[in-house]
Amino acid sequence: MIIRSMASTKSKPFFELNNSGRTSVRQGTLNFAAQSVKTPTFMPVGTRGAVKGLTSELVSSTGAKIVLGNTYHLHNSPGETAVAKMGGLRAMSHWPGPMLSDSGGFQVFSLAKISKINDEGVEFVLPSSGDKLFLTPEKSIQIQHKLGADIIMAFDDVVSLDKLSRPRTLEAMERTHHWLNRSIAEHKRLLEQQTTSYQPQTSFPKLFGIVQGGVDKKLRKKSLEFVQSTEVDGIAIGGLAVGETRQEMNHMLDYLQLQLDPDRPHYLMGVGHPIDMRYAIEHGMDMFDCVLPTRNARHGSYWFLADGRDHQSNIKTKKYENDFLPLEEGCDCYTCRGGYQRAYLRHLIRQGETLGGSLLSIHNIRYLMRIVENYQA
Amino acid sequence: MIIRSMASTKSKPFFELNNSGRTSVRQGTLNFAAQSVKTPTFMPVGTRGAVKGLTSELVSSTGAKIVLGNTYHLHNSPGETAVAKMGGLRAMSHWPGPMLSDSGGFQVFSLAKISKINDEGVEFVLPSSGDKLFLTPEKSIQIQHKLGADIIMAFDDVVSLDKLSRPRTLEAMERTHHWLNRSIAEHKRLLEQQTTSYQPQTSFPKLFGIVQGGVDKKLRKKSLEFVQSTEVDGIAIGGLAVGETRQEMNHMLDYLQLQLDPDRPHYLMGVGHPIDMRYAIEHGMDMFDCVLPTRNARHGSYWFLADGRDHQSNIKTKKYENDFLPLEEGCDCYTCRGGYQRAYLRHLIRQGETLGGSLLSIHNIRYLMRIVENYQA
Repeated sequence: MIIRSMASTKSKPFFELNNSGRTSVRQGTLNFAAQSVKTPTFMPVGTRGAVKGLTSELVSSTGAKIVLGNTYHLHNSPGETAVAKMGGLRAMSHWPGPMLSDSGGFQVFSLAKISKINDEGVEFVLPSSGDKLFLTPEKSIQIQHKLGADIIMAFDDVVSLDKLSRPRTLEAMERTHHWLNRSIAEHKRLLEQQTTSYQPQTSFPKLFGIVQGGVDKKLRKKSLEFVQSTEVDGIAIGGLAVGETRQEMNHMLDYLQLQLDPDRPHYLMGVGHPIDMRYAIEHGMDMFDCVLPTRNARHGSYWFLADGRDHQSNIKTKKYENDFLPLEEGCDCYTCRGGYQRAYLRHLIRQGETLGGSLLSIHNIRYLMRIVENYQA
Repeated sequence: MIIRSMASTKSKPFFELNNSGRTSVRQGTLNFAAQSVKTPTFMPVGTRGAVKGLTSELVSSTGAKIVLGNTYHLHNSPGETAVAKMGGLRAMSHWPGPMLSDSGGFQVFSLAKISKINDEGVEFVLPSSGDKLFLTPEKSIQIQHKLGADIIMAFDDVVSLDKLSRPRTLEAMERTHHWLNRSIAEHKRLLEQQTTSYQPQTSFPKLFGIVQGGVDKKLRKKSLEFVQSTEVDGIAIGGLAVGETRQEMNHMLDYLQLQLDPDRPHYLMGVGHPIDMRYAIEHGMDMFDCVLPTRNARHGSYWFLADGRDHQSNIKTKKYENDFLPLEEGCDCYTCRGGYQRAYLRHLIRQGETLGGSLLSIHNIRYLMRIVENYQA
């Protein structure tokens, strides 16, 4: 497929597996035009082109290498044309590394109340203006090409697991497969257009396909086989961490692990709890994204390691009123290393000072980066 | 007075005037224990121990040297005892330079709905808990000593100018004078206590007295003479920029200028509009503070210089939708120098991303610092 053959005109393949594969933990490298990123890795979410409350320098300080943006939200504001005029997602948001754009498929799920789906695509009614947005696989890929992310995602149909029926899961999976074909076709068309144009190209986006199928092993197997039969550059596992139990998710990861194509990166979407991430890394996963470290932080919640295990606490708790230690002793994040004290952070969060959420966000992202770095080669 | 004689045991006096005084613009130096600060200077406001949305490094990047904290708010949370245990205001908030604490007097004015005043002090009903706080000159000075700021303010009675009667202005002025005497006495007592204790002291706070008297020249003159008859380390002009017209404020500055003690620093409280600041600097003022640059920023408003004049614009305006220039071309602030584009900043502010307010705050503070730096020696 054009996508991959283009990558191979460069000296290095997009993804390299660096360890023997003897253990279930994979150590790899994602090679981008200007930069390489070690895996496993965690990618903070900058939905609207900014990780909430953080300058890109502060995000960089966490060790994060790839940041996400979201097609649905960026289309609504500032719009992909404006983003392109600003030099693309990276230039706009001052992110020095690669970026990944989500396809908008997840918003079909998270914004279900304002969306209507059919085989052609999804219609959203924008809450701000009442305007309608019709998102199709082609449209999503076009927007993502304009946004200029380094990794783009196929448009998928995500269903909630806690209230799903098997027919709906099956329908969503089959639709996701049709949409993957359409996403690939549109991606190819746009890549060919790029190569025949006279505009200088700094890089070509990589396209990842998304595996669906709920917590049904047969559907998941079928979906994985389908996605892997295409020439996408990476395999994403979608539709997990959306309401099922931790045990259900882990069982699914156990099951999928042996069937995953070892030569392509494995991206577990929407997972960013330390315990889940460790499990997933030890079961063949390479990439993660999640709003948890930043959303939790804004509510005062932070992670710390004690007795070799992941713990969570809330800085708003009364017991921190006279606690002058850093969030986590020994942590090397900007916040802990800088000596910001728990009593001060508690004060900031309780008083609604956004700096508190920013300082905790840095710690939480760094906490996840420490986890992935421990697994890297 | 003990306050000043102590300062003089150091090699340099607290305040030095560096230019001839031939022009009305004064160029001076404030000497603190560890650091000197050139005047005129602008001091950003960190009401609760943080300049809203900014790390101390970002505040530093603006060139600001002194940051404010507020007695009323810091007493309520985290409390002066906690601040002291964290190593004082500077250590708590990671500010590398001197800090100034406001006395809480301004809250008598700004929180008038929840406060009752008499000659002894002011009773506040705290909105969060319903608890009562009785603030007196002694209590304010005690709190400020505990907070550990480098410059502390006498407790004063601030009245609103737009609805004031002369009797109320007179009463407020006389009360302010009584309270200044009590503030000085308490300050002396605490300084003597410090020198007889065995605790190592890194520095002694400087006390500023506050001139009141509304827009009434006779009262202002009387108040200025009274404050200057005491041995306070600095002269603050309070009760301006609280509702009077720009012309009224300027007339008062014209009037006061010739009577101000040239050997002490002149601090115009609550003023931070570029036009007002320039006028005040050119009429003998040395120090300024204001929430305007940060509060305006959070609402999208920013300053820029064009044709040698100060202008204000709002980034939310439609015309910036396709504007890819920095906020102010040629500005050397973190935001403009970094190349953040207007269309991106507009997008952030409109979408409620706090990073937008932070990036505009940096620009606005830097804008004021550029003004004062142009007047410095």
